[in-house]
Amino acid sequence: MYKKEIKVMDCTVRDGGLMNKWQFSDEFVRAVYKGCVEAGIDYMEIGYKSSERAFSRDEVGPWKFCDDRDIRRIVGDNNTNLKLSAMADIGRIDTEDIPPKSESVIDMIRVACYVHQIDKAIFLAEHCMDKGYETTINLMAVSKVNEPELDQALNDLSQSKVPTVYVVDSFGSMYCESVEYLVKKYLKALPGKKVGIHAHNNMQLAMSNTVTSLIHGATMLDATLLGMGRGAGNCPIEVLIAFLKNPKYRLLPLLDVIQNQVKPWQDKIDWGYHVPYLITGALNEHPRSAMKWMDSEKKDDFVAFMKEMHDYELLE
Amino acid sequence: MYKKEIKVMDCTVRDGGLMNKWQFSDEFVRAVYKGCVEAGIDYMEIGYKSSERAFSRDEVGPWKFCDDRDIRRIVGDNNTNLKLSAMADIGRIDTEDIPPKSESVIDMIRVACYVHQIDKAIFLAEHCMDKGYETTINLMAVSKVNEPELDQALNDLSQSKVPTVYVVDSFGSMYCESVEYLVKKYLKALPGKKVGIHAHNNMQLAMSNTVTSLIHGATMLDATLLGMGRGAGNCPIEVLIAFLKNPKYRLLPLLDVIQNQVKPWQDKIDWGYHVPYLITGALNEHPRSAMKWMDSEKKDDFVAFMKEMHDYELLE
Repeated sequence: MYKKEIKVMDCTVRDGGLMNKWQFSDEFVRAVYKGCVEAGIDYMEIGYKSSERAFSRDEVGPWKFCDDRDIRRIVGDNNTNLKLSAMADIGRIDTEDIPPKSESVIDMIRVACYVHQIDKAIFLAEHCMDKGYETTINLMAVSKVNEPELDQALNDLSQSKVPTVYVVDSFGSMYCESVEYLVKKYLKALPGKKVGIHAHNNMQLAMSNTVTSLIHGATMLDATLLGMGRGAGNCPIEVLIAFLKNPKYRLLPLLDVIQNQVKPWQDKIDWGYHVPYLITGALNEHPRSAMKWMDSEKKDDFVAFMKEMHDYELLE
Repeated sequence: MYKKEIKVMDCTVRDGGLMNKWQFSDEFVRAVYKGCVEAGIDYMEIGYKSSERAFSRDEVGPWKFCDDRDIRRIVGDNNTNLKLSAMADIGRIDTEDIPPKSESVIDMIRVACYVHQIDKAIFLAEHCMDKGYETTINLMAVSKVNEPELDQALNDLSQSKVPTVYVVDSFGSMYCESVEYLVKKYLKALPGKKVGIHAHNNMQLAMSNTVTSLIHGATMLDATLLGMGRGAGNCPIEVLIAFLKNPKYRLLPLLDVIQNQVKPWQDKIDWGYHVPYLITGALNEHPRSAMKWMDSEKKDDFVAFMKEMHDYELLE
């Protein structure tokens, strides 16, 4: 599947950090960075850009803030071809928390938002562009959005300066047909813009949904080492790179960081395919109830979880 | 994805047995059987039908032979809607080892073969049909077969009485496009016959390749509980049933047997997605070298395995 316009983004630290509150050692983050550089990956998302007022450093690690001093400790001035990204959540950052690009080693700020926040997201993203950053808007949880609301959001986006919009399968509930539909819809509604894909693996479809998106025109592909990410995790970057067979990428440096840094984390936290995540995915629900279940002593009682989820569904 | 002609086959004991030499307790096999009955699954493959002369019961469990006495200990006369299947490998069974259907609780015999064995496979399958069984032919390792050889085999199959032919992704090396191509090719070459799919999960595509096959006309779908099967395992039946949303199937009985019987096995044997299986899948190689690696102390040294596989590839 050779397309020269493909860009792969590693989100291991950002999305994986949702499972350990970004409590990664500098050694871990440096190894991911080095692996991505050597593998020829295009972007690495090193965390969230959040206001220090929104979270406490007593609870979350430095990659929840992406302060330039923390990042430079890992990457120096980043004199490589790997671009660095940070994600900004609406409401958890103020425009004054974002330095001009000339003062930052970050290249891209991706604004994550729900459909009702689209105006705020466009405002923030255009603000970041004015400060010199590349930007994207990542429209979350679209599997629960009514079509007219999505159409309105896409219309607003089409009139914005933001060059890239992501299809985000927040709940891991999408099948190939829904992904194909949305990628085509976004491309049609957003002439001249690029479309990205961010998949979750609840139904073991993260890799195939990423490939389906690519086939239908998405060019920004999110993935993580060993699929490390919230709940069922993401498209595994090693599977994607093995598939792409693109001469600009190398698999071996990724396997190195997986075996030395990422795999050991799997003994500590349960990301990846587990039945509770399948159940929330199949029900098109946020994975938080499955994550709570996986943290409890009942984690392997799948029958009880399914019964609870059905009750929960009926109560809503 | 509602199609009334869909048939789902659980292969947990047969394919999962490749990982533990079919050393399942009667309690395990009975729980799988009961779960399949209650879930409304169409077929359960309970093992291999092999000659007692081909293997020793000191080394392999009873499900390598599928003697009717062993099966009846689990299912009695099987007065249920669940049909029972056994797989026969060419060269490991003689026609005299197969009793008439009137003496057996087995409903279907699936003949697995490589493309060069197609004449023997058709002979054995038609022999089984004459004895009263349903049959299929499962054409293995087609990802390594030259097109003219495959065309010849399909031509032979089209002239046989065998009603169902499987696309088998033995090495877990197929992408959606190859699966779509093969399913369409088989359906075209085999007018009036049904096509099945048996997928492996080396590249985390077993579930999506099964869905792709279904979309393009395959109606016999193989899957296993928690994906239990050789190497990277198979399409997980719980994910498939959650996807199908077909009123004839129930998810809860499958979750029950997964949590009580199948999940505990995962602490003992490493089926499922692991990087060595990704590497053999991406290289379109038999998983045996990855299975050997996973059984060694070097199992988590992915870099060394990849280097070894590349050497191995160059030597061939």
